[in-house]
Amino acid sequence: MAKDLGVTPRGENYAEWYSDIVKRADLAENSVVRGCMVVKPAGYAIWELMQKGLDGMFKETGHRNAAFPMLIPKSFFEREAEHVDGFAKECAVVTHHRLKARDDGKGLDVDPEAKLEEPYIIRPTSETIIWNSYKGWIQSWRDLPILLNQWCSVMRWELRPRLFLRTSEFFWQEGHTAHASQEEAEAEARLILGLYTRFLTEFLAVPVVNGVKSDNEKFAGADHTYTVEALTQDRRAIQAATSHNLGQNFAKAFDVKYQSKEGGLEHVWATSWGASSRLIGTVIMAHSDDRGFVCPPRVAPNQVVIVPIGRGDDLERVTEVADRLALGLREVRWNGETLRVFVDRRDHLSPGFKFNDWELKGACVRLELGPRDIEAGQCVLARRDQTEKTPVSFDHLEDAVTASLTGLQEGLYEAALRFRSENTRRVETWAEFETAFQGEGGGGFVLAHWDGTTETEQRITEITKATIRCIPLEPLDPSDDEPGPCVLTGAPSQRRVVFAKAY
Amino acid sequence: MAKDLGVTPRGENYAEWYSDIVKRADLAENSVVRGCMVVKPAGYAIWELMQKGLDGMFKETGHRNAAFPMLIPKSFFEREAEHVDGFAKECAVVTHHRLKARDDGKGLDVDPEAKLEEPYIIRPTSETIIWNSYKGWIQSWRDLPILLNQWCSVMRWELRPRLFLRTSEFFWQEGHTAHASQEEAEAEARLILGLYTRFLTEFLAVPVVNGVKSDNEKFAGADHTYTVEALTQDRRAIQAATSHNLGQNFAKAFDVKYQSKEGGLEHVWATSWGASSRLIGTVIMAHSDDRGFVCPPRVAPNQVVIVPIGRGDDLERVTEVADRLALGLREVRWNGETLRVFVDRRDHLSPGFKFNDWELKGACVRLELGPRDIEAGQCVLARRDQTEKTPVSFDHLEDAVTASLTGLQEGLYEAALRFRSENTRRVETWAEFETAFQGEGGGGFVLAHWDGTTETEQRITEITKATIRCIPLEPLDPSDDEPGPCVLTGAPSQRRVVFAKAY
Repeated sequence: MAKDLGVTPRGENYAEWYSDIVKRADLAENSVVRGCMVVKPAGYAIWELMQKGLDGMFKETGHRNAAFPMLIPKSFFEREAEHVDGFAKECAVVTHHRLKARDDGKGLDVDPEAKLEEPYIIRPTSETIIWNSYKGWIQSWRDLPILLNQWCSVMRWELRPRLFLRTSEFFWQEGHTAHASQEEAEAEARLILGLYTRFLTEFLAVPVVNGVKSDNEKFAGADHTYTVEALTQDRRAIQAATSHNLGQNFAKAFDVKYQSKEGGLEHVWATSWGASSRLIGTVIMAHSDDRGFVCPPRVAPNQVVIVPIGRGDDLERVTEVADRLALGLREVRWNGETLRVFVDRRDHLSPGFKFNDWELKGACVRLELGPRDIEAGQCVLARRDQTEKTPVSFDHLEDAVTASLTGLQEGLYEAALRFRSENTRRVETWAEFETAFQGEGGGGFVLAHWDGTTETEQRITEITKATIRCIPLEPLDPSDDEPGPCVLTGAPSQRRVVFAKAY
Repeated sequence: MAKDLGVTPRGENYAEWYSDIVKRADLAENSVVRGCMVVKPAGYAIWELMQKGLDGMFKETGHRNAAFPMLIPKSFFEREAEHVDGFAKECAVVTHHRLKARDDGKGLDVDPEAKLEEPYIIRPTSETIIWNSYKGWIQSWRDLPILLNQWCSVMRWELRPRLFLRTSEFFWQEGHTAHASQEEAEAEARLILGLYTRFLTEFLAVPVVNGVKSDNEKFAGADHTYTVEALTQDRRAIQAATSHNLGQNFAKAFDVKYQSKEGGLEHVWATSWGASSRLIGTVIMAHSDDRGFVCPPRVAPNQVVIVPIGRGDDLERVTEVADRLALGLREVRWNGETLRVFVDRRDHLSPGFKFNDWELKGACVRLELGPRDIEAGQCVLARRDQTEKTPVSFDHLEDAVTASLTGLQEGLYEAALRFRSENTRRVETWAEFETAFQGEGGGGFVLAHWDGTTETEQRITEITKATIRCIPLEPLDPSDDEPGPCVLTGAPSQRRVVFAKAY
């Protein structure tokens, strides 16, 4: 059956299963441009719903959107040493501003006379160009805080792209804030971490561990980086969003000072934070099954799909009733928004094909409606994460649909949380640590003691490919905060950290 | 007084007036990147409201959003001859994908070993990359129509930028549709023209003439181009949005065919259409005055600003009342949305300064509230386009505010329409034509007969700098559709066309 649907089962080949879901749910495809994707309407609609959810949270907490240039002068990059190391090796460089026709009239050449004095980089992230602007905007403590966000795409040259998870161009938001004190910047970085955590939990039904990155894994240019880490069904970690306390690093690199209330001249404190279209990959990996894409209702473009069944005049009559039901359902509010309802009018496909198709595409609730259903004043409801179907009378349809959506949203979270619990291990010895990442069923989150040195961290990664995903802010279990010996060196450790192989 | 506000009067220097408005209303600023702007939060908030309005119209008419790569292979450009001529001379070219540290460790160089086999262009518009994708998506008539739109920024190298009106990078939407027949593509191009017209009229309060471009002025690669043209206060035309019937030009360039219902293999028909952040410039030019920015309420981030007045404990008490009023007003719906209300809590600025500041920044309705107002159970209302203020009792505040917003929205449209009428002339002779564009008060829309040849059009432009803005679809006056002699050559003409100097 799985073969019929064109989806490789997870157990057979997880990477192919993922690709099949993206393809069959028509979410995105590779483009001819190296490492760049085309996000198709079904995929982009999810991104729009994610944007709306996140943007609402940012605005509720006082942030506003702005737009900075997509190009960054090369010299800006050179100012912050760590930052440059992090991004120089994978950036798209603009060197000319004109093409010209070849002398033979066939085709175009880059015009050597249109060479730029200084090359530009397509932004891989915008700290440098934004802090260069902030220099002009900030004089005194009265100009602070600045709480801005930008929705855009960025470019990091990628040789082994995977749709949504890792692509040269990707879509994201990047927040960039400026503050008058270290404490305020730290509070901001933590606030945003909390918003990301809430968004993943409440909108995407994805349980996350949040914590701080080790120095080795932090953002290039940050004092420290907070992260939310999710677990995929092949038991790997996926970094879903990050929030950085940048300290005064960029203020120093771009000479941004403010006059304090007390009259002194101080460098400004900064944060930056981002979540990207990778969240779509995260959702796919967290919830989908061998029948196709499973989308949490709060970000699902197709919350309800009605499939009219019948032939000829019958079909026409049934479709009319389907349209009426859709109109009614579109007035219903769920989680503060009206329902997104689609009537499948394709008349050259069988009902069975359509049922499978909507399971592939991640419709949350499917309503099947035939002539006999109409006579009985009912339709048949199928919830995406269940196999049995339920007849529902038209009188109770609205309640049944919203209850199903709530049930699906909560059910997905609970299933993902259960999966994570089953795949979170605590190990004491190096032998246990190595074993935890081996064989079928290996992987997951491994909580172990670490001596806090980059050297040990790198040795562990060399041997096992596992990395430190984060040092949790809250212990997953109270015992995680008890001291113990480092799993590799035996040196003392204050608390367990989360190791995993990661995307 | 105008000097105090930092706004050059329109009559003194219109170009400086425009720059002053953009700067003093804090909408945008030039960046260090050649020709690119930084859109500041106050400007971007307008763009978000414009996006919301347009996006809603597009979706209501069956369009969906998607995202295509920002880079376009150079060879794609070479495929459509007119298209290439239109854009090759002003594009940003990506030639390398890596920087590397200099041997002396100081700074970065473009890594010559990371030269791309084929350069990429940052999209100036996306017809080519999108039609390359459509080739893979379209086999039969069942795959049509495709009705997609993309919100993004594009890059057209610009040596003489002006904020919002003409910048190297600008923000826009570009619709790209594919159809099974010429008629359907034409209907689509006209549908979108209608949406743009409605948006300009209803949201931006800007009256427009819509019509078709002459061959000389049409989009590079289109069969024909529809346009909506507005008039600025210095009596120039501004092209506010365009909708192109592309015929089969891009389908042929990218070999995109479909199997028709009848079984034949046909090239697909196309449209594309776009409106950009230039709309913000259009709004500024259409409505603002010597006191600052005037924003039509439907796209105004600050529809209502409440200014609490007082000192010490008084101010605290007044601000509490202001907050309560704001809470109430934020529940009020106007044109289908809740009101956008801001309380100005800045405590180091005088009320007078704040009043001027909000006039500069284009707040639609200002409510002034002092201790004595509270005793009287009222506040003082100032509407942005009026100089007198009105006391309004708290009991009637909601009605007074919504009536003021409606009055402002309609008043702006009427004033702009009146201005356009006063600056629309019909001329018969060449002498009249030349005079119409000369001296103080010259310019505006000049309706004249034209013999339909590109040669005449270009001669007219050489002599007067005026261009044909459009051949109106509906005559502005019934007499415009009567035949007459070309204003330059005397050759026969079927109808008058609109000439103007343009931005």
